Amino acid sequence: MTSKILLIGVGGVGSIAAYTLQKNGCEVSVVARSQYDVLSNDGFSIESCDYGSIPTFKPDHVFKNAEEAVSKVGVFDYIVVTTKNIPDVSPVEKMFEKAYNKDTAIVLLENGIGIERSVFKAFPDATVISGVTMISSTLYGTTVKHVGPDTVSFGPFINSSIDKNLQISKAKKFVELYYNEKNKAQYNKDVKYTRWRKLVYNGAINTVCAITNVDSGRLELFGGMDKISRPAMKEIIAIAKADGVELPEDIMDFMIRSDDGEYYPPSMLIDIRKNQYTEYKTIVGTALEIANEKGVDAPVLTILSDLLEVIQMRTMESRGRIVLPEKRPLPSDNFEITYQ
Amino acid sequence: MTSKILLIGVGGVGSIAAYTLQKNGCEVSVVARSQYDVLSNDGFSIESCDYGSIPTFKPDHVFKNAEEAVSKVGVFDYIVVTTKNIPDVSPVEKMFEKAYNKDTAIVLLENGIGIERSVFKAFPDATVISGVTMISSTLYGTTVKHVGPDTVSFGPFINSSIDKNLQISKAKKFVELYYNEKNKAQYNKDVKYTRWRKLVYNGAINTVCAITNVDSGRLELFGGMDKISRPAMKEIIAIAKADGVELPEDIMDFMIRSDDGEYYPPSMLIDIRKNQYTEYKTIVGTALEIANEKGVDAPVLTILSDLLEVIQMRTMESRGRIVLPEKRPLPSDNFEITYQ
Repeated sequence: MTSKILLIGVGGVGSIAAYTLQKNGCEVSVVARSQYDVLSNDGFSIESCDYGSIPTFKPDHVFKNAEEAVSKVGVFDYIVVTTKNIPDVSPVEKMFEKAYNKDTAIVLLENGIGIERSVFKAFPDATVISGVTMISSTLYGTTVKHVGPDTVSFGPFINSSIDKNLQISKAKKFVELYYNEKNKAQYNKDVKYTRWRKLVYNGAINTVCAITNVDSGRLELFGGMDKISRPAMKEIIAIAKADGVELPEDIMDFMIRSDDGEYYPPSMLIDIRKNQYTEYKTIVGTALEIANEKGVDAPVLTILSDLLEVIQMRTMESRGRIVLPEKRPLPSDNFEITYQ
Repeated sequence: MTSKILLIGVGGVGSIAAYTLQKNGCEVSVVARSQYDVLSNDGFSIESCDYGSIPTFKPDHVFKNAEEAVSKVGVFDYIVVTTKNIPDVSPVEKMFEKAYNKDTAIVLLENGIGIERSVFKAFPDATVISGVTMISSTLYGTTVKHVGPDTVSFGPFINSSIDKNLQISKAKKFVELYYNEKNKAQYNKDVKYTRWRKLVYNGAINTVCAITNVDSGRLELFGGMDKISRPAMKEIIAIAKADGVELPEDIMDFMIRSDDGEYYPPSMLIDIRKNQYTEYKTIVGTALEIANEKGVDAPVLTILSDLLEVIQMRTMESRGRIVLPEKRPLPSDNFEITYQ
């Protein structure tokens, strides 16, 4: 029987995921907002290092929201979330709540640590699957430029209130649906390890590049990699350890060398340059919550997170989500920011 | 006898200083670089909260460099330095070394801590006078907009290898030369206290505004004032204490409230927005050197300084002072940055 997939978020990562699953025989529905018209009429073109040049890709179905999707297609086997994870602006669980069913597994193909928490809170009986990909893929206009292979793995965030084997089998089934000779998708039995490992890069390099507005190559040449990112990495390794994940010491140099040869602009830097929100909450905010719970000191990550919070609010103001009074309020005015 | 002044740096602060001294009867020579032609031909116009509207201001003499100035005018009584203090790009002592004479007192009307150190190193027999002003004045094109009064004080950085009373009398003499009913310039007998006090603002608010690209009003509303600036202020107070300067606890709230009513963009933020170099070295770099000498921990200031260093190098690259290889070098390439 054909598996029914609902995909939320058709950017660089989501387009490749949609293409892959549809090509592999799934029935793919997509929720698109700003891209609704173009995707349902003309589709995207894809230039892919894995799949070559695809002049036109259109998902099987395109919907404006999850409610419409479930009413037309019925219960989905998987909801795959590939949007940026910005809980302070648009919580992901809100995006698909109308299409959720306890038989539908949720696949979070997104960055960050602890991203399953809010989903379990909203849907305590959910099967939630972690997806981590090393892909480099960006949507420019209506063209997907996929330049770094979709090296991906999936595995369950274990929900202790439902049958563990069922969760594992749903994750393994999803690996089968996603797998092909190009991506060689793998089952990941230690999701927590994989996510903490990736956080060593994202929490310590991606963040500092975003704050200083330089790519990872320049960050190294300008001294910030050793002075700021390395101390931040040590804190991430310590928090991970307190959270039960033992990362090897040489992970630091592995991550520092992972963009070798490239002046690579990581995702949060691109967000800043495009005046978009960054995923700082799931990339450092949750790690710091865990540090706090476990009593681990993380002074460097704390400042990076606090700086990124100010920058996020600057972005909110410039995008009209925050409106400030014309004259700077005094403390006695008791002004409080409201979010539009 | 008319006092002969050489002024280095005719921006917002320098123009008002030159105007004030000339109006008060000194013979004012100015070293101008990019402004040489306009200043020697047409002069600047000044709109001043202290002095009203001045359609044309021209210094008595305009020179291209200090060497030319001293050869035409002879030994100066005072050299007044009002440029930004960017030791990593252009050390101030280099700017006037050709005009220096042991009878010439140096007035550093500039931000920062420890700015006298490099001057004493270059000229061990020098009288060096500190100038601290709360002025708000900016040069736009050829118009000086002076909006915040020139509340200024001068006093000697004591040089222990020469007569102390001579230094004090030269500083007091300079106060007389500068004083008028508008600025009410004062003699400052505790220069070190005054400079550490101002650093509470500049090291903790100016820096964070520059990094996050928000003014001091937004920094407060967006939470950064309490989360980042306050901890940084505590570190500055601790370093000052180790350096023999006891600042009152309520200095923090005084500085936080000092721009009340205004969404005020501090100087380093303006530098960043104009793609100019920031004075981060004299504003936090030297404070951290002192912290290091005295064994004071300053983790927040350290990260702020490290981030500003990366940003400074980004600015250097964008201004052509640093040229990077087209392909990101590997560690095995042993690439080293050279400064143009």
